Amino acid sequence: MAGGRDTGPRPLRTRAAALDAADGLRGARALFALDDGVYLDGNSLGALPAHVPARVADIVTRQWGELRIRSWDESGWWTAPERIGDRIAPLVGAAPGQIVVGDSTSVNVFKAVVAAARLRPDRTDIVVDASTFPTDGYIAESAARMTGRRIVPVAPAELSSALGPDTAVVLLNHVDYRTGRLHDLPSLTADVHAAGAVAVWDLCHSAGALPVGLDAHGVDLAVGCTYKYLNGGPGSPAYLYVAERHQAAFDSPLPGWHSHADPFAMDHAYAPADGATRGRVGTPEILSTLALEAALEVWDGVSIDSVRAKSLALTDFFLECVAAYVPGGLDGPDSRLTSTTPVAHAERGSQIALRCAEAPAVMKELVARGVVGDLRRPDVLRFGFTPLYVGFADAERAAATLAEVLAEITPV
Amino acid sequence: MAGGRDTGPRPLRTRAAALDAADGLRGARALFALDDGVYLDGNSLGALPAHVPARVADIVTRQWGELRIRSWDESGWWTAPERIGDRIAPLVGAAPGQIVVGDSTSVNVFKAVVAAARLRPDRTDIVVDASTFPTDGYIAESAARMTGRRIVPVAPAELSSALGPDTAVVLLNHVDYRTGRLHDLPSLTADVHAAGAVAVWDLCHSAGALPVGLDAHGVDLAVGCTYKYLNGGPGSPAYLYVAERHQAAFDSPLPGWHSHADPFAMDHAYAPADGATRGRVGTPEILSTLALEAALEVWDGVSIDSVRAKSLALTDFFLECVAAYVPGGLDGPDSRLTSTTPVAHAERGSQIALRCAEAPAVMKELVARGVVGDLRRPDVLRFGFTPLYVGFADAERAAATLAEVLAEITPV
Repeated sequence: MAGGRDTGPRPLRTRAAALDAADGLRGARALFALDDGVYLDGNSLGALPAHVPARVADIVTRQWGELRIRSWDESGWWTAPERIGDRIAPLVGAAPGQIVVGDSTSVNVFKAVVAAARLRPDRTDIVVDASTFPTDGYIAESAARMTGRRIVPVAPAELSSALGPDTAVVLLNHVDYRTGRLHDLPSLTADVHAAGAVAVWDLCHSAGALPVGLDAHGVDLAVGCTYKYLNGGPGSPAYLYVAERHQAAFDSPLPGWHSHADPFAMDHAYAPADGATRGRVGTPEILSTLALEAALEVWDGVSIDSVRAKSLALTDFFLECVAAYVPGGLDGPDSRLTSTTPVAHAERGSQIALRCAEAPAVMKELVARGVVGDLRRPDVLRFGFTPLYVGFADAERAAATLAEVLAEITPV
Repeated sequence: MAGGRDTGPRPLRTRAAALDAADGLRGARALFALDDGVYLDGNSLGALPAHVPARVADIVTRQWGELRIRSWDESGWWTAPERIGDRIAPLVGAAPGQIVVGDSTSVNVFKAVVAAARLRPDRTDIVVDASTFPTDGYIAESAARMTGRRIVPVAPAELSSALGPDTAVVLLNHVDYRTGRLHDLPSLTADVHAAGAVAVWDLCHSAGALPVGLDAHGVDLAVGCTYKYLNGGPGSPAYLYVAERHQAAFDSPLPGWHSHADPFAMDHAYAPADGATRGRVGTPEILSTLALEAALEVWDGVSIDSVRAKSLALTDFFLECVAAYVPGGLDGPDSRLTSTTPVAHAERGSQIALRCAEAPAVMKELVARGVVGDLRRPDVLRFGFTPLYVGFADAERAAATLAEVLAEITPV
C-alpha cells in the first residue's frame, strides 16, 4: 500500500479481525465465488454463489438438451415462477402464495401501479417518490397516462401533505438507490391506508439486506429485483407481491397466457388464474429464472435479522474507518467526503453513499486497486455492503484504500 | 418395430435416404445435441446447439463470477439487446437497427399494439386475427382497453371485410400455431396499408422456418419468440421490430430506463432513445439473452431460402408417408387422421397438424417410442419440422411409428 499506511499497527484492522471472528454469518462467504478483492457492488450485481455454475450446466445440458419440451413438466419449468416466489417470500416477510417471479422490475412496476389504480377507480392521483429510481417514475407516468390519472411527485418525508381523498396509489422506494436512505415502510404504509389509498413498494434496494415485513405491515403490492442482495445473476427476473386480500381483484394490464386459469385450453376468452399466478405474463426466461432459484439456496438457514444486524455494524464500521483514515475526515469542514447516507440506523439501508468532487477518478482508481464500488454521476461514490460475503476486514481495507487514493488525487 | 412393418423393403425409406444424402443442410444436424429419437417439437422448443453449454458456462463463471459488474461494459451485456436483434434481422428480412431483443412475446405484443394505435390517434379499431395464439388476443384486448379502442376479431381470410377508415391497427399471426397455415404477409400487409392502418405481425411460428421479408413487404411492427425455430433456449427473450420510418414516433407504453436516451444520467424526465433501443424496458435477463446469442451461431452461412425449400420437402414427404402407412390413409373417408395444414405450399408453415379422435393417447405413445411431437387439446397431433436438424429419414420413421401406434390403439 502507498503512503506508509501499512507499516505500523492499525487498531481498526485489529478490531476488524475481532469483529470477523465473532461474526455468525462469516461462514456464508465460502458459498460465493470471490477473489481477493473487496466487492462492494453487490447492491448492483450480487456475487456468484459457487454452486450455481454446476446447476446451470445441468439446466442447459440435461433439462434443455436432453429432456427438451418434457422439462416444462418434468423439470418443473412451468411452476417455477410461483415456486421461486415462495422461496423469496420469507426474506420479505410474506406468507406463501403471494409472490410470483418473472419479467423486469420495470414491467412489474407497470403491472402493480395499473392494478393498484384499478383498485381505486374513483380516485385521480398516483403519488410517486420524487427521489425514486427513475424507471419507477417513467413507468408510473405511463401507468397514469393509460389509466387516466395524474402523477403527484413527492419527497417521502413530505408524503402526508400529498395524501388526500384523491389519492389512488402511492409508489415508494424502500431504500433510495442513491443515498441509501431507508424509508419507514410501516409508518408510511399506515399513512397511505389512512388516506384510503393503495401502497406499492419497490424493494430493489432492501430485499435481502434487511427485514421488510410485507404481511406484517399490510403492504398492498410490491415489486423488487433479484440480482442485487438476492444474488440471482445479471438481470435475473424481478418479482411481484400481491397481498392475498387483493388477489381476486387484481386486474393486470398484461394478461398474458401464463396468467390464464387454464392456459392450455387455448381459450379465446381470458379468465385469470387465482392467486399470485395472476401476475404472470408470458413464457418465463427459464435459464435466468432457474439460475436465480439455485442462487437462493445460500439463504437456507440464514435469518434476515442477523443480516440486518451485520449490515448496520458493517456500515457503521466503514464510516468509522473512513473518518479515521481519510485526510480531513468525513463530513467535516476540511473533508473531501460527505456522506449522504443517514447516520440513524432506522434510516439506513445497506449502502454508504459518499459525495466527492473527484468521484469519477476516485472510483476508477479504487476499482484498479481491487475495491469495487460504483459511481452515480456526477459525484457519488456508492459502496454496497452485502453481509453474506462482505466482512469487517473488507470494510477496513476499502476505507484504507479510499484514503490512499484520495491522497494521490489532487482536489479539483 | 411392431406389426411386421420393418421386415420387407420400404420404398419410402429408400427415398428418405436418398433425399437426406442430397440435402444441402444435412451438415447442420451435427451442430445440435440430439439423441436417437425423432424430435418434431422444435416448433415449441428448439433443440440445444451443442456449443451452447460451454458458452453459458463462460457467461456464468467468468462474466458474472469474475468480472461481475464490469461485464455490463466489458462483456457487452448492455448492448446485447440491439446486437442480438441485428443478428436476427437477416433471418426475417430486416436491415440492421430495427430489432431489439428482450421481454416475453406477450410483453412485446403489448408494446407493439399500443404503439401502433398511437400512430393512428383518430381511429378506433384494433383488428385481431380471431384464430391467433390466445395470448395475442388477451394482450390486444388490454391494449385496446388502455388506449380507448375496440377489438374487432376477424379470420385472416376475411380481413378485407373488416378493414375501413376506423381501422387503426391489425395484429396478425404469420403462421397459425394450431393448423400451421401460413398467411399471405405481403398481400395482407398491403391490404392493411390500403386502409391506412398499421400492420403488426407475430412471427413466432415463422421466423427461422421461412423467409419473412419484413422490410421488403413494408411491415410496420413485428414481434416474435426465439425459442422455437431460432433454438434460443427455454423462454429465451422475444424481439420487437419497429420499422425505421416509425421509430421516431414509436411511443412505448413501457418506457423503462433501458429505453432512455441517457440511462445513467438517472434523469427524472423521460427522454426516449433513438432507434430500436426505444423498444427496451428494464434490465435484460442476461443468462437467457446471451444463451440465445450463442445459439444463433448455427445460422452462420445458412440461407433461409434453403431452409424453406427443405421444410416444404419434409412436410410433403411426411404427408406422403403418413398416407402410405396409416391404415385408412390420410383425409379419406376411412381415415382416422385429417390434416388441417394446407396442402398448398404458399399456405403452409413448417408444421403438420393432424386431427385424430385418439390424439392424447396417440401422442403419449409416440413420445414413449421416441417420436416427440405435441398435443393441442382436444384432438390435434402437431409435428414441427425444423430443417436444421430434422431429416427425411426422421419424417419416414415418424410416419411409420404413427401407423404402428394407430394400429394398436382402438378407435374411439
